[in-house]
Amino acid sequence: MNERIEKLSQWMKEKEVDVCLVTSPENVFYLSGFLSDPHERLLGIAVFQEAEPFLICPAMEKNEAKNAGWNYEIISHSDTDRPWELVKAAISSRISSIHTASIEKEHLNVERYESMLNLFPDASFVPAEEKLRLLRLKKNEHELATIRKACALADFAVQTGIEELKEGKTELDIIAAIEFELKKKGVTAMSFSTMVLTGKNAASPHGNPGLTKIAKGDLVLFDLGVIVDGYCSDITRTVAFGQVSGKQTEIYETVLRGQLEALKAIKPGTACSQVDLAARNVIAEAGYGEYFPHRLGHGLGISVHEYPSITETSPLLLEEGMVFTVEPGIYVPGIAGVRIEDDVMVTADGVEILTKHPKDLLIIE
Amino acid sequence: MNERIEKLSQWMKEKEVDVCLVTSPENVFYLSGFLSDPHERLLGIAVFQEAEPFLICPAMEKNEAKNAGWNYEIISHSDTDRPWELVKAAISSRISSIHTASIEKEHLNVERYESMLNLFPDASFVPAEEKLRLLRLKKNEHELATIRKACALADFAVQTGIEELKEGKTELDIIAAIEFELKKKGVTAMSFSTMVLTGKNAASPHGNPGLTKIAKGDLVLFDLGVIVDGYCSDITRTVAFGQVSGKQTEIYETVLRGQLEALKAIKPGTACSQVDLAARNVIAEAGYGEYFPHRLGHGLGISVHEYPSITETSPLLLEEGMVFTVEPGIYVPGIAGVRIEDDVMVTADGVEILTKHPKDLLIIE
Repeated sequence: MNERIEKLSQWMKEKEVDVCLVTSPENVFYLSGFLSDPHERLLGIAVFQEAEPFLICPAMEKNEAKNAGWNYEIISHSDTDRPWELVKAAISSRISSIHTASIEKEHLNVERYESMLNLFPDASFVPAEEKLRLLRLKKNEHELATIRKACALADFAVQTGIEELKEGKTELDIIAAIEFELKKKGVTAMSFSTMVLTGKNAASPHGNPGLTKIAKGDLVLFDLGVIVDGYCSDITRTVAFGQVSGKQTEIYETVLRGQLEALKAIKPGTACSQVDLAARNVIAEAGYGEYFPHRLGHGLGISVHEYPSITETSPLLLEEGMVFTVEPGIYVPGIAGVRIEDDVMVTADGVEILTKHPKDLLIIE
Repeated sequence: MNERIEKLSQWMKEKEVDVCLVTSPENVFYLSGFLSDPHERLLGIAVFQEAEPFLICPAMEKNEAKNAGWNYEIISHSDTDRPWELVKAAISSRISSIHTASIEKEHLNVERYESMLNLFPDASFVPAEEKLRLLRLKKNEHELATIRKACALADFAVQTGIEELKEGKTELDIIAAIEFELKKKGVTAMSFSTMVLTGKNAASPHGNPGLTKIAKGDLVLFDLGVIVDGYCSDITRTVAFGQVSGKQTEIYETVLRGQLEALKAIKPGTACSQVDLAARNVIAEAGYGEYFPHRLGHGLGISVHEYPSITETSPLLLEEGMVFTVEPGIYVPGIAGVRIEDDVMVTADGVEILTKHPKDLLIIE
């Protein structure tokens, strides 16, 4: 068995789980290397304590699953098959009865759950999320190498956007240029909808890009990420288009000081809350506490938002190999919206900053 | 009550459903005009037989929901609230007990379902999907006007792509140019990942665009759609880059004849199966039946794939106001992949074709 499935089996033994059915595309990818969006069709991996796992997928994807490196049984179904009956038969051929099944309760919908209840009426169902989150928490060398590539492309994308800034261009014009250059480099998917927000639009933590034009004296905020081989990056930079006010500059410098303090706090054994508070305290002491309304950051990997959450109350201790974002922000309506975000990895004795675009306030004349 | 909610209440009376909780962003938008992606936060509308409906949404979206035209109660929740308890209180203030609740079983996840089971342990839960599908089936004038705008932008996008074709450019280069020009027109979202497939890549119905270069003698397939104010378009055109072979031309002409026959078959009272078969028979008679492996089309509106499915077995009768795609295709590995897709609306006595880009085989020299 591959190492990840082995760890899941080990957990199942401890918890007396007879079968774990993993159905989210992210976790199927994590366990198998097979990245697929099956839409409404059934995709899943069944893992057992001792028996061999199997993968079920739409018939037209069987070869791709095999090519992705899945060496165990693949059960494929066409649109006229009843996939849950195939699942039941495959499970029944491996184990004689199910007392406890584990499923992704945040992913599985009620319709599918009812199919499972019908097939296994005596089983109790426990959530698989917590264990899968923990498995994905620490990234291995291959994952890190992939995330580094995604981060390098995010740096490139921000630089492209900065070079495109010109009075009268709209936010969407800049986004168009960024994604145009990324596609020319072979990027097929962004981690989320690219954000370029200028002036007042950037001063809301929930602004949406549109036809607002870049004007002199604006702070322009870029928030974007790139997916490489199934792994996400996520970067935010804020730059000044022309001379900005003393107040805007003060806000920028405060966010940057907070961000640098948070980065300094990162090392194995530190609680997530301490990293959040390292930035939050700087911002609060400068009088902007109420204008930093969100958590410091979030885990990053196959999902752009994954475990852990870096909040002021999280007791989780950092460990080598964890990857997350550090992204304090200050949003003062009508005055400025500034966020500075890096992706970081916890190292043996500190932190590696994976996004490398410069952070000193850039003033574009 | 608004007309859509009124119809849902009417159905609830017939089915003796005490409360219907709608949670998919698409159906919340349909019932309220409020278009939102709440990610992991709870968004929903509760509808009753007689009592006033309410909407529950994240606190930071309350104003947007109101501005979108929701005139009933809005219950907003912050990240420290327990949203299901707010839902329970709001329901209990309206009706004394729940025997039957209706939920979107294909959308609601097990975690949320278990929250509902805890709050309403004596209720039985029935699916809401079928009724919501039927409500959304016939589009009104406002919806049609919006879809027409989305279709006009899809026409523009295909034309942009055609003008960008040049030997040595990659599929991703062409997609980059299309989306660049759309963003300059204010388009913020596509209906799905834009497809530009050339040569052998187009000959698979599941090809993915990449760094394949446009070459003389290729058929190039464009499949794309644009979202305007929450409504989708979806168009496919296939063009010849340079002179193509007699076989490729024959395949193209066969698909086109099939597509035109399907369009001719559309009028109120015709079964969906007859529309599918009008195209399928042309293609089968030309000897390409086995190379047309998918349904003729799908409903289109708030979702890019919605009810109904236009298949060779669907007995559903067409009605004025239904909007769907007509997209036969022939994919012969190594030789050609051709698909031609229009979005259409059923009129009082026939069909209005909403996508207008020309369909005669275009040979780009």
